[in-house]
Amino acid sequence: MRNMTRIAFVGLGAMGLPMASNLVRKGFDVTGFDLNANALATLEGAGGRRAGSARDAAHDADVLILMVVNAAQAEAVLFEGGALESLRDGGVVALMATCPPSAVEAIEARVQRAGRRLVDAPVSGGVAGAKGATLTIMAAGPRDTFDLAKPVFDAMGDKVFHVGERPGQGAMVKTVNQLLCGVHIAVVAEAFALASKVGVDLDILLQIMSGSAASSWMLKDRGPRMLQEQPEVTSAVDIFVKDLGIVLDAGRDTRAALPLAAAAHQMFLAASGRGDGHEDDSQVIRTYLALNGVR
Amino acid sequence: MRNMTRIAFVGLGAMGLPMASNLVRKGFDVTGFDLNANALATLEGAGGRRAGSARDAAHDADVLILMVVNAAQAEAVLFEGGALESLRDGGVVALMATCPPSAVEAIEARVQRAGRRLVDAPVSGGVAGAKGATLTIMAAGPRDTFDLAKPVFDAMGDKVFHVGERPGQGAMVKTVNQLLCGVHIAVVAEAFALASKVGVDLDILLQIMSGSAASSWMLKDRGPRMLQEQPEVTSAVDIFVKDLGIVLDAGRDTRAALPLAAAAHQMFLAASGRGDGHEDDSQVIRTYLALNGVR
Repeated sequence: MRNMTRIAFVGLGAMGLPMASNLVRKGFDVTGFDLNANALATLEGAGGRRAGSARDAAHDADVLILMVVNAAQAEAVLFEGGALESLRDGGVVALMATCPPSAVEAIEARVQRAGRRLVDAPVSGGVAGAKGATLTIMAAGPRDTFDLAKPVFDAMGDKVFHVGERPGQGAMVKTVNQLLCGVHIAVVAEAFALASKVGVDLDILLQIMSGSAASSWMLKDRGPRMLQEQPEVTSAVDIFVKDLGIVLDAGRDTRAALPLAAAAHQMFLAASGRGDGHEDDSQVIRTYLALNGVR
Repeated sequence: MRNMTRIAFVGLGAMGLPMASNLVRKGFDVTGFDLNANALATLEGAGGRRAGSARDAAHDADVLILMVVNAAQAEAVLFEGGALESLRDGGVVALMATCPPSAVEAIEARVQRAGRRLVDAPVSGGVAGAKGATLTIMAAGPRDTFDLAKPVFDAMGDKVFHVGERPGQGAMVKTVNQLLCGVHIAVVAEAFALASKVGVDLDILLQIMSGSAASSWMLKDRGPRMLQEQPEVTSAVDIFVKDLGIVLDAGRDTRAALPLAAAAHQMFLAASGRGDGHEDDSQVIRTYLALNGVR
């Protein structure tokens, strides 16, 4: 079995660039492409190579990693940009961007028809995880394809899971992750807005909830920023407008009613609609305060 | 200022009995009452005293602790049973049962008219917390009244918070706690039911979510039991039918829309309506599976 050592990496953004650099550091032969020339220069400085197009980057590569913004960009790179046919026969496409499960399935069908293989491998852990090679990677695809790509994933993350045999299942795990995250943020806002109606001290409330069965990762992370008037933006309201949108699309595609996700999405949508789309996502609490007439 | 050493304790159930026993152990003079003679005998064996009625237990006590089932029982003990007028003038009623905030406010008004004081002090931490004296106690009332009762609370819990000056605010903190807990359980069920639609391995999903930003105390606690067909009942579906009912009543009383809590309540109600009211609350997932036609 040929080793998977030649990597094409398309999408060198805040996540992709450190991921590609970690691959270089671990001894992979990485050729990158991005429209941003600075990112290409940085990769080159780290010991990687630069290409003039995604097609050139993918030329005779073993693995083509896509860390682009969304499914439409992945399709453009693979099918219109010619990267897929440039990839060696039997090569593996690792789709690591966050995409709707149904879009991943559609991409997989076309990749397979072209004689290549797809592993669906979205990540979580943010920029810190990308830099530290501590990403969680939720990969789906036939076991043997996953096994081929695993050394590549291990160079970028320390929690690499094979979540299923069918591409799209990785995207679904990521979708479920975002469902929980989005609802957890909204419900903290709902709870705090109720408490503020009766003048409960929200600092003490947060302290109590953080140590009780009511706790969540999001409560501890976003809770303190909900108590600030104008917190630093770590992740914007509009990200959850998009991500909970993907969640609800997945529910439509699979015919699954998602009443809590749907209600939470409405609250983020309203926040965006009132002009807070670029504010920190903790500020979904403003929707509740406006809704319930607090302050 | 007179020390608060003579305690009347009404309601010696699974929580109340170990709480009263801890007071005895810490040197308080405790007289208990419950309709259950076994509980009275156990308290006596631990060094407490038994009374033939709540009124007798409260006779000349400094603090009357109510650890009864609900607000109706608290009212019956205080006003019909005569415990309030039996309590010494200026004595403190510590209402530690879980009650709706509005009911606490109504009780407080009557207690004050009778020349006594109320501290609203619901708990969380369950039977384990009651036995280990590690309860979280969310107390509300005028600061000086709280300060008087604090040594008594410290004998039963290790996280004693003064959450506000007005009785009812403690109940609101507990209500908010239950709002978060109930929604967190339901949203895990919603997420797992979606994932099962596309055949994702739920054990791996649980493992991934437990270590990600999607995590919650309830995900880690109830998640594993959601994957079991017939798990042990640690807390029943009907408890959350009741507790989310209290949450929604609090929302009505204060005029606060609670879209996530309302949707979660519907899912627990449906679970109960299908005959699963006495099952473990993790089995709210059956509502989603039935709803979405899984299995």
